[in-house]
Order: sequence, then structure tokens, then C-alpha cells
Amino acid sequence: MYEDLRQAVYAANMELYRRNLVLYTWGNVSQVDRDKGVFGIKPSGVAYEALKPEDIVIVSLENGKRVDGTLNPSSDTPTHFGLYRAFREIGGVTHTHSTCATSFAQAGREIPCLGTTHADYIAGSVPVTRFLTEAEVAQDYEGETATVIVEAFQSRNPVHTPAVLVRGHGPFTWGKDAAASVYNAVVLEEVARMAMYTFSLNPDTAALPFHVQNKHFSRKHGPNAYYGQK
Amino acid sequence: MYEDLRQAVYAANMELYRRNLVLYTWGNVSQVDRDKGVFGIKPSGVAYEALKPEDIVIVSLENGKRVDGTLNPSSDTPTHFGLYRAFREIGGVTHTHSTCATSFAQAGREIPCLGTTHADYIAGSVPVTRFLTEAEVAQDYEGETATVIVEAFQSRNPVHTPAVLVRGHGPFTWGKDAAASVYNAVVLEEVARMAMYTFSLNPDTAALPFHVQNKHFSRKHGPNAYYGQK
Amino acid sequence: MYEDLRQAVYAANMELYRRNLVLYTWGNVSQVDRDKGVFGIKPSGVAYEALKPEDIVIVSLENGKRVDGTLNPSSDTPTHFGLYRAFREIGGVTHTHSTCATSFAQAGREIPCLGTTHADYIAGSVPVTRFLTEAEVAQDYEGETATVIVEAFQSRNPVHTPAVLVRGHGPFTWGKDAAASVYNAVVLEEVARMAMYTFSLNPDTAALPFHVQNKHFSRKHGPNAYYGQK
Amino acid sequence: MYEDLRQAVYAANMELYRRNLVLYTWGNVSQVDRDKGVFGIKPSGVAYEALKPEDIVIVSLENGKRVDGTLNPSSDTPTHFGLYRAFREIGGVTHTHSTCATSFAQAGREIPCLGTTHADYIAGSVPVTRFLTEAEVAQDYEGETATVIVEAFQSRNPVHTPAVLVRGHGPFTWGKDAAASVYNAVVLEEVARMAMYTFSLNPDTAALPFHVQNKHFSRKHGPNAYYGQK
Repeated sequence: MYEDLRQAVYAANMELYRRNLVLYTWGNVSQVDRDKGVFGIKPSGVAYEALKPEDIVIVSLENGKRVDGTLNPSSDTPTHFGLYRAFREIGGVTHTHSTCATSFAQAGREIPCLGTTHADYIAGSVPVTRFLTEAEVAQDYEGETATVIVEAFQSRNPVHTPAVLVRGHGPFTWGKDAAASVYNAVVLEEVARMAMYTFSLNPDTAALPFHVQNKHFSRKHGPNAYYGQK
Repeated sequence: MYEDLRQAVYAANMELYRRNLVLYTWGNVSQVDRDKGVFGIKPSGVAYEALKPEDIVIVSLENGKRVDGTLNPSSDTPTHFGLYRAFREIGGVTHTHSTCATSFAQAGREIPCLGTTHADYIAGSVPVTRFLTEAEVAQDYEGETATVIVEAFQSRNPVHTPAVLVRGHGPFTWGKDAAASVYNAVVLEEVARMAMYTFSLNPDTAALPFHVQNKHFSRKHGPNAYYGQK
Repeated sequence: MYEDLRQAVYAANMELYRRNLVLYTWGNVSQVDRDKGVFGIKPSGVAYEALKPEDIVIVSLENGKRVDGTLNPSSDTPTHFGLYRAFREIGGVTHTHSTCATSFAQAGREIPCLGTTHADYIAGSVPVTRFLTEAEVAQDYEGETATVIVEAFQSRNPVHTPAVLVRGHGPFTWGKDAAASVYNAVVLEEVARMAMYTFSLNPDTAALPFHVQNKHFSRKHGPNAYYGQK
Repeated sequence: MYEDLRQAVYAANMELYRRNLVLYTWGNVSQVDRDKGVFGIKPSGVAYEALKPEDIVIVSLENGKRVDGTLNPSSDTPTHFGLYRAFREIGGVTHTHSTCATSFAQAGREIPCLGTTHADYIAGSVPVTRFLTEAEVAQDYEGETATVIVEAFQSRNPVHTPAVLVRGHGPFTWGKDAAASVYNAVVLEEVARMAMYTFSLNPDTAALPFHVQNKHFSRKHGPNAYYGQK
């Protein structure tokens, strides 16, 4: 019943592993099937080397509980659940502790759009959330992590800005499906590395002029995109 | 009719990929055939893993339009076109978003000649262009990118200085053919990495004394070169 | 008689090598068998490419002398010995010169808990020891290295904080067995790299709020842990 | 007649390549046979992928001229020649443009002994030479490069400190034979990387206390060494 979903989620998790964005069991990818009202997600603490498609856990989009599968879902499942509920246009979510993006999250700095590599994929800066309060951590840590992400997007469009840094934790990215969210995780890590190097060379680097940012974003996305093949 | 050209452009693009200078579909290499009045270039948005020699797009050196092939050429084609028109002695052009060279481009800093590694291949500093104006972006973004590069070479010889940083974007390199332009892209990335590290160790590092710069450049290039085999 | 112990120590040393945490013969891993009163450790100066399970040297937990095997044990054996004597709950010890952790040790800086990656595995900061005195070096260098480590843990629980930086030298990590100590060495190197990058982005980064540190540590460890599978 | 020498020099050059210390044709290794009054060295500008034992060029220790082989020797041959003449105890020399050591050379900073990794192999700091004068460059560039290296060792023992940074150029290392000089080149690059990171974490890091430096050097070298096997 969920074979295609499991296969897609499995393949995206393995791609994350092949791209060297995870150490051990860190990181997880999910994909939603809104028609069926579920999403599939990596099981908690399972090594990528041992992961199999049938291990993918199916979770209800209504209440965040497991509806199919025998393993425990990722401990970050409530965050994925919250993002699918709040951002209705997204189809896949990736969480990593990738080195450079996590370093920005730890430093509490957003990643401004410093170049066309960033502008090609991400509109504006990659925001950083606030810390969760002690009450939020005590009550529903992983669920409230989604809350602070959504808070950071009150004046942003998550479809155009498919990435966020959770303060002191690490990045979440998303996209139309699981594979797209992994693609954005890979891009984010490279963009973060370049931004770190750029600041080391010029601590006062300003954001790319808006007319260049906009040109690059729109030549890849939107009605007049002309990048790639038909 | 364009088999040899396609094969050379294909091989140079794959070498760029093997040298780990590209992520996904970023980067493109072209080579000109001035007798036939055309250049071959990577198609837009095609993954390197899937690229085949016959996918290389043939473009007119007269008007920059596709004359052979079924795919869309790289979105950066007008920049390659402008460089072949302005720099009559060059035979190949490479564009990448390689990490360290792009970081210099984002920081808006040229790369001074800090050591003999740089001097062996690049005369003087690697210049950084100005930003394009809003009017230039609106009118012909990729074509005007060539314009600002050419502007940066008004008092430089592009044969001796085969690299440039487009401000806020990334590097372009060139050479006698596609393979040479890729070689220079690899060298530029390593030279940029070393320059970044050098500045972290000594922010006030001065350029290499000119007599050493000149010695290294001339022992590899020019009439009295004595590096390598006959 | 010591086959299982030798196999475990051999496998953990090879894992250290595969994880790219050692150059040449640097680094060593040991595991204790408290029932038999011995620990097994890598022989001194043997290349990982040539290491065999039977090369593992068996050392007495009473007096630190070799009790089985023909090769000399690691020159760091007295440090392992001292740690097993002082920290009764640990079962394996790893020593490396991994790049980033060693850089913190050389800089004489502890690694504060800057993010959840750190908090998931290590309670509080990773301490740095003092330098050994001239008398300590002259008398029993490797044994006194254990002494300064133990000194740094007077108000810490080594089970919760399984890592230390020996000033001007490098990291030691430990765990319930040899494999766990290697796992912690890999985690420590990544945590150190992120901390170094974080400080380059924000030299004044404060430690993660304690309620978040504690949440992450306790969701993986302790009585109410809910990470992973049953 | 020179088969063993050629094989040793060939193997050491290939090891340099496998250790990722060279890009393209950068770097070269030689080994001397003082009984025969010659040294073997990599030919100039030959790709490592194509290098064969018979390509190694045999050069006279009397006059620095080729005595056997058909290819041109490395353009750095006069530097190797000068080092073998001045440092009578060394048997092999390696030159690279390895990233971090070259960055120190470009920054004009010596590498102080900041930790035991350095102390294990190199006594004291790795010195950096002065720049060559215009007259020296004009007259005999590569030969005078040996002169400034020897100058930097007036009060150092090259057997105990087997590495130098040529200002604005890159490192030379040496050892009892070609393989040992490559080993030291690999160690130097790692030591340089750690030193760079250490200074980024603490710009005022002092050298390791001398009693620790001396302990580590002497436990690996000298009459009472106890590292490794008999």
C-alpha cells in the first residue's frame, strides 16, 4: 500500500548518505502523500548501511502517530509533522547536521544571499530560528521545533526559501518531494561553506544586489525560467 | 561534421566533473573552432553522469545562436560567446562555482599573486569584475557578464592572465582549448584556497616580489621556457 | 585465551583507520576485560595496513606490563592503563591526533557545548588538561598523562563526558568498549570542526542553553531515552 | 646500473601522488647514491599517471648535470643538488606545493612547534627562508634556492629538522632516503594544517614547553628511543 512512498523515502535517505552529509545515523528524510494522509520517514537510530525500504515508517498526517511499519520513527518526526501541517505546498523534508550549515546555526547567524549560487535556489537569506524556551523544551521539544521554524517564516514564502537553521541545532530543508529536499540540503551545505569562507575574506560582505538575486532566482524558477531543458 | 569538437568539449566537461569542481549541473566548458565559425558547449541543466558527446550544443560564433544539436545550450552561452568575440587568441572557456574562487568573487576581492604556484600559471592578480547594473541585468544578463569581464581586462593580456572572478558570481577561466581552460580552473581553485589560508595566517601578506613572479611565469611560458620536455 | 578481546581491539583500530582519523601509525585503541584483569592494545609503530588480530598486545590491569603477545605495546599504554584504573566504568579507550580536536588541544581551549550535536553525546564541555611539569615528564610521561586527565575530571562524570583534550597533545575518548570509544573519537572530531567554524563565524558564541543541552543528552541517554529502537 | 635507485625514486614519487600532496605535475622527489656520486630525480613536467621507473633522470653529484636518462630532470634539480652538497647526512629530498605548508610559506611565517605531533618528527620550528634577491633570481634561481635554505639552517641540524619553507614558494623536506622525505612531507602538511587551525582558535598560542618537545622527539629518535618495535 505504501511501497512507492517507502521506496522514494528510502532512496532519498540513501542519497543523503552518498552525498556525505551524514555521520552515523544523523539526519533523516521524509516525504508526504497528502492524498493518503500520511508521510514516510526514516526509522530512529538505524545505520544507513543497514537501511532497507521496508524499514521506512509510515506516519499519520492527522495525529503524527505511526500507522504502518514496525520500527520507531525518527525522534525528529514531530518536527516533520509540524512542517507538513504548516507548509501545505511542500512534499519532502530533510534534516541534517551538515558541518557548515550547522556551524551557522550554532553561531546564531542567518546566511545572507552573498552570491548567485545561493540566489539560484534560495530567495533571500536562510533564516535562523530563536532558541526554544525551557517550557517549550519540556512540553514537546520536537513539535515546538516546528513551531519556531514556522515563526521564522511569517513573512517568508517557504516554497521560495526552502531552508532554515534551527538555532544551536542544525538545518532543515524541504522541496516538492523527498529527493528535492535532499538536493536543497546539499546546496545549502555548499552555500554555507562559501558564505563562511566569504566572511573570512571580507567580514563586511554585503548581500548580492537585489536585481542580481532576483535575476538568478527567476531564470531558474517561475513563469519565465529559461534554465535547463523543456 | 562537429564530431571532434563535440568529443573535445565532452571530455573537458567530464574532466571538470572528475576533478570535483562541480556540484550537480553547475559549471560548463566550451571550445571554439574559429575556422568553422562555431563553438561547442555543454547543454543547460544536464547532469554530468548522463552527459553524452552528442549532447554538446554547437553555437554560431557570428550570432550566438544554436546551429546544431537538439538541446538548449548552457544559460551562460552568451558569456562564452562574448569572451570568444573579445579575446581572439583563446580556444576554450570554463565556468565553475568552485568553492574558494567563488568565495573570493563573493567577497569582492581580487586574488593577488602571493606565491610561485600562482605565478607559474597566472600573470599578476586574478581580477574581480564590477557588479552588473540593473539595466545590464534586465537587458542581456549573460551577454553583459562578458562585457564586465572584458572591461576588467582593458590593461591585461588574457593569454597571460587566463582567469577572472565575476563579482558575486564565480570564476571564468580560459586557455588554448577546452582542456586547457579546465586545467586553469583546477589551478585557480587551488591558488584561491592557498590565498585564503595565507590571508588567515597573515592578513597583510604582500604580493610576491615581481622578479620572482616574472621568473616563474617565464620559466613555464614564453620564448625561454625551460620547464617540462621538448 | 584472549581471542575475543584481540578481535575486538583489532576491529576497533581498523575502524579508526577507515574513518580517516589516523595518519601512518598515529592513534591507538584498547579494550579492557576486567574479569580477566587485562586489556588489549595496538602494538607500537605498526602500520594499520599490516595490523593483524594476533598483533594485539595483552597488558595486565594490575601492573601495566605485557602478559601476552610478542610485540611492544603502544608507547601510550601507561595512559590507557591509568584511565582504566581511575575510571572504573569504562571499557575502551581511543587516542588520536585527529586534526580539529588536536588543534583545540594545541590552542589550549576546551570545546564548549555549542550545539545539539555535541549535547547528544557529551555532557558539558570537553575539558583540556594542564601541561605536564618538567618533573612529571621526566619521571613517567605517559603515566602522568593519565594523571592530568583524571585531575580534569575531578568534578565531571567520565561516563557522561567521554572525551578530553591533553594540552598540546591531542584527544583521548572512551566508552563501554573499544568500538564505543572509536565512535566517540569520530563524533569528537566532527564536534571540534563545527566548534572551530562556529567561533570563526561568531567568536562570542555562548554555550547552548542548559535546558536544550540536557534535553538532547537525556533523549539519547539515561532512563527516559527515546532515541533509536528498543 | 641505476635500477635500484630509479625504482626507489619512482616509488617515492608515486607515494607522494597517492597521498594527495600533488596536483598535476607539481612536486618532485629525489634520492642520492653517494657511493656512485649521483642522485635520481623525477623528470620535468611528466604526469604522475604516466610516470615509469625508467623515466627517472640520473644526475651527477659533482656538477648537477644529467649522466643517464633521456628526459629533462625536474626544473628544481639545482635545488636538490645544492641540498645534497650542503647536507651530507641526508639521502632523499621532496618538494611539494602542498596546500597548508605552502600557505605558511606564502604568509612568510615559520611553523612553531605547537604540539606533540610536530615534536614527534621535527625539532623546533620549521623555518622560512628569506626571499631571493633580484640578482640571485637572475643568475641561478634554482641553485640559489638551495643557498637560502642552507642559510636558514646555519644554527639548525638538518637531520633533526627535516623541513623548510621557501618564502613565497613552498616546502622542501628530506630524510635518510626518498621514502623518508615523502613521509616528512606528509607529516609537514598535517602539522601545518593543525598549526593554521590552532592559530585561528588562539592567535597567541605559544610553542609547546621545551621539556615536552624534547620528550616527544627523543622517545622516537636518538639513543633512548622507545617508540615502535626493535
